[in-house]
Amino acid sequence: MNLVREALDGNRYAVARLISLVEDGDEASRSALTALYEHTGQAHLVGVTGPPGSGKSTLVNALTQTLRRQDVTVGIIAVDPTSPFTGGALLGDRVRMRDLAGDSGVFIRSMATRGSLGGLAQATNDVIKVLDAVGFDVILIETVGAGQSEVEIARTAHTTVVLEAPGMGDEVQALKAGLMEIADILVVNKADRPGAARTARALEMVINRNAPATKDGWAPPILQTVALDGSGVPELWNTVEEHREYLCTSGLLAKRERMRIETELLNILQRRLLERLVSRVGEERLEAWIERIVAREVDVYTATQALCETRSNGSVKG
Amino acid sequence: MNLVREALDGNRYAVARLISLVEDGDEASRSALTALYEHTGQAHLVGVTGPPGSGKSTLVNALTQTLRRQDVTVGIIAVDPTSPFTGGALLGDRVRMRDLAGDSGVFIRSMATRGSLGGLAQATNDVIKVLDAVGFDVILIETVGAGQSEVEIARTAHTTVVLEAPGMGDEVQALKAGLMEIADILVVNKADRPGAARTARALEMVINRNAPATKDGWAPPILQTVALDGSGVPELWNTVEEHREYLCTSGLLAKRERMRIETELLNILQRRLLERLVSRVGEERLEAWIERIVAREVDVYTATQALCETRSNGSVKG
Repeated sequence: MNLVREALDGNRYAVARLISLVEDGDEASRSALTALYEHTGQAHLVGVTGPPGSGKSTLVNALTQTLRRQDVTVGIIAVDPTSPFTGGALLGDRVRMRDLAGDSGVFIRSMATRGSLGGLAQATNDVIKVLDAVGFDVILIETVGAGQSEVEIARTAHTTVVLEAPGMGDEVQALKAGLMEIADILVVNKADRPGAARTARALEMVINRNAPATKDGWAPPILQTVALDGSGVPELWNTVEEHREYLCTSGLLAKRERMRIETELLNILQRRLLERLVSRVGEERLEAWIERIVAREVDVYTATQALCETRSNGSVKG
Repeated sequence: MNLVREALDGNRYAVARLISLVEDGDEASRSALTALYEHTGQAHLVGVTGPPGSGKSTLVNALTQTLRRQDVTVGIIAVDPTSPFTGGALLGDRVRMRDLAGDSGVFIRSMATRGSLGGLAQATNDVIKVLDAVGFDVILIETVGAGQSEVEIARTAHTTVVLEAPGMGDEVQALKAGLMEIADILVVNKADRPGAARTARALEMVINRNAPATKDGWAPPILQTVALDGSGVPELWNTVEEHREYLCTSGLLAKRERMRIETELLNILQRRLLERLVSRVGEERLEAWIERIVAREVDVYTATQALCETRSNGSVKG
């Protein structure tokens, strides 16, 4: 496929078109991903998440500038699965575009909900593969911290950075949002604001209280940054590199990679099997079963059993 | 099945044992659910969700007391899919137990994460069916407001009540958590605290700003309650009943019910198809495919295709 060849050769327009193709998720995208796949596995994937207002976009921006000074290339994927109410992704993007535009060592892509959440997670996985294959050294995956979707997408990353900001109420917002469990590194951003030390202490207390919960022998360090002026950002990057080093030497990198691939395979298999069943059974017969469940003539488990055994001519396997 | 018979006859111990069975989700539970299913579809399902600290448990408690005074029976399902860090569910339960213990018109069940989130949503669905079948008039489903999981579980409810509390920071927390879209009724709880009117106005602004987003012609009303002393709670219940009336006369109840059942069927089908495939292919061969993907010898889509076509003897369909 020419597009894949051109993207691998470093043509940015080909990369952009390839990503759009992959986002659509149709047959053409699958053969592109098949062709690309052997080139993946090189990039370091860093998840950046935290509650709204913690400054994720600004930190991703600052990290990118730090990395570019070291001549490291950076792919950025901003995932915003929430409603159009928030608009956060758009604003963040505009800021980023202004600061990073014209640098061929940076590639930025925003992804919003398309269809199901499972679909978004898979599309994100696939876009990561494209950026990885075409040679970006580091891929920053920014997700708004709002629950299960973030946890799912964060599992894709090798290193997950969870942000918190001071003065967001008495309690630790990241804790409320259930983000603490996925953190490899904790960051109190906007650390020039009053209450930063208190927020750091609160995070530390939570970590100490859950000492046995340290992630595979790695105790998540707590850093302070001011993303807006870049303070603490090089130190954050050093810590990310220490974490990567730890993952490699402990064998955890391989373990996480394997788990990630297993989860991805099982999710794709599930969807594919359902597609095949629906096309075998036919929409019409599926509808008829739904109507029967609605009418309480049959329950969902009995219907499932019958549908699994239906042949394409409508008869049931004997 | 005796247990089903006894539960339908109103034996509370049988109901409790049946729920435990259903939570386990094995074969025995499926035949129990099949036997129960024709008795379902009577209860009004009310979801209660909101950010941590908005007073969900207390409101569920107060609603229950209001309903019991009208001789309406109430099943309560408290779903806490977050980490053991929070502990909210336990505390809430203790309060409830004290106030509601010994009333045979109330049944309380807490559910925590077991395995996957999809598993929790399905287990919640199944427990709802048990409580519905054995005759509880109203089922209150309390979920901690933390994202996609809540949205998924809230879809099960006929009427979804989203709570907010004043003084939880400058912005509307429910909005941050992405809960506004699923609200049929908005409640500012702890309305005796300073800032309640401001919070109500903030919610109203959000609703007005999104006027086209009114849910199927129903504009979510905003109420104020003090769940701790019961103020506003009977009014809240009246509004829930108005919403149910609206759902019935507009035909939306049937439409939502159908969508709910379709989603449930497709989810169960997916999982069942995957189980069947894994048992046909065998764990060992599945592992081998995962290793090949890890080694970049093959990509996940190619592996999916091959696995779908594998016969139980390992050969590929021609």
